[in-house]
Amino acid sequence: MNTWALTKLSYGVYAVTSWADGGKATGCIANSAMQVTSSPATIAVSINHDNFTNECISKNGRFAINILGENSEPSIIGNFGFRSGRDSEKFPAKPEIKDFLPIVDGAIAYITCKVIDKMETATHTVFLGEVIGAEIINDADEPMTYAYYHKVIKGKAPKNAPTYIEE
Amino acid sequence: MNTWALTKLSYGVYAVTSWADGGKATGCIANSAMQVTSSPATIAVSINHDNFTNECISKNGRFAINILGENSEPSIIGNFGFRSGRDSEKFPAKPEIKDFLPIVDGAIAYITCKVIDKMETATHTVFLGEVIGAEIINDADEPMTYAYYHKVIKGKAPKNAPTYIEE
Repeated sequence: MNTWALTKLSYGVYAVTSWADGGKATGCIANSAMQVTSSPATIAVSINHDNFTNECISKNGRFAINILGENSEPSIIGNFGFRSGRDSEKFPAKPEIKDFLPIVDGAIAYITCKVIDKMETATHTVFLGEVIGAEIINDADEPMTYAYYHKVIKGKAPKNAPTYIEE
Repeated sequence: MNTWALTKLSYGVYAVTSWADGGKATGCIANSAMQVTSSPATIAVSINHDNFTNECISKNGRFAINILGENSEPSIIGNFGFRSGRDSEKFPAKPEIKDFLPIVDGAIAYITCKVIDKMETATHTVFLGEVIGAEIINDADEPMTYAYYHKVIKGKAPKNAPTYIEE
């Protein structure tokens, strides 16, 4: 088996956000998100058990997919992807809120979801969310693909951004 | 709600294949496929209930994700995506077989899976497959994204290919 074949699957880059206990907005970076049905629209997203956002979505029952664009600030990925919401603040004190969910400044679109089912695996939970809201914020920018992130963003990462080198 | 926001999610283009009763190789085109866990590697794919491939995967318990490339023959999409395996032959009489699954000639990579779980929705089944095999067939071609298919392949479609106009 050549597991590099799995890297030929295509993904986007998303910040998946929700609320922690006490009303703190938090989230993480995910690639594994996809639309499952069109009517009603549902989205599945895979989140690692160890991820703080996993327990937040489980408790809160809602999540937002914040779609990053090719020109979204790379710091969004550093902020949401390379530290834990357990011991860090990922949002400003008063984040923008849509459909009762925190939205990431700099995302090109968002999709808000209510959890209607989930599937457990050894290491990840697949949350199935019914779409309750969706808006395009910036139609001029292209959605960032995971391939673009690897090939272009990583190439552009400054030397003082250890998070991008580590990834 | 602006449902166009959902088109900002990124996908690849895949032929998902399995066996029909009687040993006929069949399959369909899917975009909604993603890796869910890395160890063991698992893949989730969403297939419409009305799709012949859905019942084939349910009965057979296995499926293969055949990853299409930017230079894969557009006729693969016409063949697998725009007619039903119920009343048409999608493979030659003796298809290439890997891990007991039919592989599409012209795919740039394949991932073979054994179904270990599934989640039912109103219109689609999300099959969770444990990866049993994976190989890269053509590393020179880029994986086709759904965005590329819409923007480039559709533009190139000849006038005598009504399937691409209809899509």
